[in-house]
Amino acid sequence: MTRSRELHLVARPTGLPGPEVYHMAERDLPRPVQGEILVQIRWLSLDPYMRGRMNDAKSYVEPFRLNAPLDGGVIAEVMESHDPGFEAGDLVLAHGPWAEYAVLKAAGAQKLPRGSRVPPQAWLSVLGMPGMTAWTGLNRIAEAKAGETILVSSAAGAVGSLAAQLAREKGLRVIGVAGGADKCAQAVAEFGCDLCLDHRGKEARELSEEIAEAAPHGVDIYFENVGGTTLQAVLPRMNTFGRIALCGAIAWYNDPASAPPASHIWMPIIQKRLRVEGFIVSDHAAHRGAFFDEVLPLVEAGKILWHETVANGLEAAPEAFAGLLQGKNTGKQLVRIS
Amino acid sequence: MTRSRELHLVARPTGLPGPEVYHMAERDLPRPVQGEILVQIRWLSLDPYMRGRMNDAKSYVEPFRLNAPLDGGVIAEVMESHDPGFEAGDLVLAHGPWAEYAVLKAAGAQKLPRGSRVPPQAWLSVLGMPGMTAWTGLNRIAEAKAGETILVSSAAGAVGSLAAQLAREKGLRVIGVAGGADKCAQAVAEFGCDLCLDHRGKEARELSEEIAEAAPHGVDIYFENVGGTTLQAVLPRMNTFGRIALCGAIAWYNDPASAPPASHIWMPIIQKRLRVEGFIVSDHAAHRGAFFDEVLPLVEAGKILWHETVANGLEAAPEAFAGLLQGKNTGKQLVRIS
Repeated sequence: MTRSRELHLVARPTGLPGPEVYHMAERDLPRPVQGEILVQIRWLSLDPYMRGRMNDAKSYVEPFRLNAPLDGGVIAEVMESHDPGFEAGDLVLAHGPWAEYAVLKAAGAQKLPRGSRVPPQAWLSVLGMPGMTAWTGLNRIAEAKAGETILVSSAAGAVGSLAAQLAREKGLRVIGVAGGADKCAQAVAEFGCDLCLDHRGKEARELSEEIAEAAPHGVDIYFENVGGTTLQAVLPRMNTFGRIALCGAIAWYNDPASAPPASHIWMPIIQKRLRVEGFIVSDHAAHRGAFFDEVLPLVEAGKILWHETVANGLEAAPEAFAGLLQGKNTGKQLVRIS
Repeated sequence: MTRSRELHLVARPTGLPGPEVYHMAERDLPRPVQGEILVQIRWLSLDPYMRGRMNDAKSYVEPFRLNAPLDGGVIAEVMESHDPGFEAGDLVLAHGPWAEYAVLKAAGAQKLPRGSRVPPQAWLSVLGMPGMTAWTGLNRIAEAKAGETILVSSAAGAVGSLAAQLAREKGLRVIGVAGGADKCAQAVAEFGCDLCLDHRGKEARELSEEIAEAAPHGVDIYFENVGGTTLQAVLPRMNTFGRIALCGAIAWYNDPASAPPASHIWMPIIQKRLRVEGFIVSDHAAHRGAFFDEVLPLVEAGKILWHETVANGLEAAPEAFAGLLQGKNTGKQLVRIS
């Protein structure tokens, strides 16, 4: 019998989710049956889209259930396998609970290669969902071409930092936007941005003028992760027939009502004949092969850098998640459990 | 020497443009020189996009100048030609001033066919800009396919009434939205809608429930002319990977600040992976041949109906334009001058 602590959602938050919406529970796990594996969870992936799942609203993924563990991408080690595809000691990428241990369906787990130079948690970032998201937005949604100018929001974030680097590899001019001088410095030094603008404390108009200076020929592609001031600032700088790869809008997840009137973003789309396309990485799973073919060699050759912000222990997940929503992380926000 | 009255814009309106922003002037026209034609203007086209030109803001067309005549599409009769391509008595489609007479460059005028069964002002509606707009939005932007469900806003308007009929001809299920019971009845009886919902006096939530009932399999395409309540109502009903052909947002032209928070329209685009594309008909001029090939036979065969709301005399233009912005017209809003 394996006893496991797990973090439950016990209330639906208004605004920023604080500690009061979580409860640390403990229980004995059922024994794994045929086709299942018992795993010890090593790493949790924290992702902005999870904020939406805390609401009781239908979206592209089901809301988190109340009084049950939250869940998401995890890296785990197999303790006991009841499936011929796995053995004890295997590291797997899977969808699992915010918990110390779990019994998972083997069919939903992906074994990580043994002996790779790439650390296992990279499969939650550069080689995982954020990497594939950056690649999909850039290639399949925005159809980025060499010589174009791209503006990447959250340029020091898990997705943005990879979108910026992949864009640079493709030969685009890359302008980052990030919150704070440190992130901006890192976005330029490590994440492929030709320059990076700090949006903190700025009105849209001021940021927009800075974008105009940074992009004298206008912006062809906006990789949208944030909404908020950055969206307002970039719209007047978009070139006619520009594209917006709409990946997220983290600035509005906690407080949707803080957004400016919709007309301010809707009318420029007409005036500039923009193409705006929302996307979710899971729809593009059929293209994971193309993603790996392009990105894995770059990662192994050290041409793509990625950064992790690590919180230690399951009990640290709530604060780390709130920090992610406030942009306190750089790169991928992880929770290490062991 | 030809004396002509002309309607000037003398102030930039806030909200609905009232009579105070116009001034009726009168002047002697210069004599036409080589390459010019003197015309008597018969019909003015009034179009929602003109509201944007009243603001002093750069857009895809220049703002109207103050203390000069407003301008737009006109049907005119040639009085005097100084160009070999035209002779007195020709009817032309041209860009011209809100005036009784004008001297125009012959190169910008298009001679209408003589002896057509189609009345000349149809070249300002079904065979002109609104018709080409409807066709472009449906085919080149939304890529409409038989069997899909389309929701058409302003379904009794100049563009919407044609988009609805062209969609029906293509084999789509067509749901109209219009303001008022009369317009809705007309949208069904004449403009190809399978049914039409009245948005007047309704909250977005109520209209959204009516759309859900009208489109049990969801909405694949939204032909967007209005913004406002209709946009808010349709977003929850859009199918995954749906398309929005973004043509206009008339509900917000006078009062952009009345729009709901941008997050309310931005986040569903992600959740439903929508493709939103703004378009302006003039970018698609190369496809006018394909438009005429498809639409002219339908018009001549009486399979496409169009409606006109006609104001009489240049002095009636200001009230007619305000009425257009308030949705008082059905079909194409014209001003007859003679």
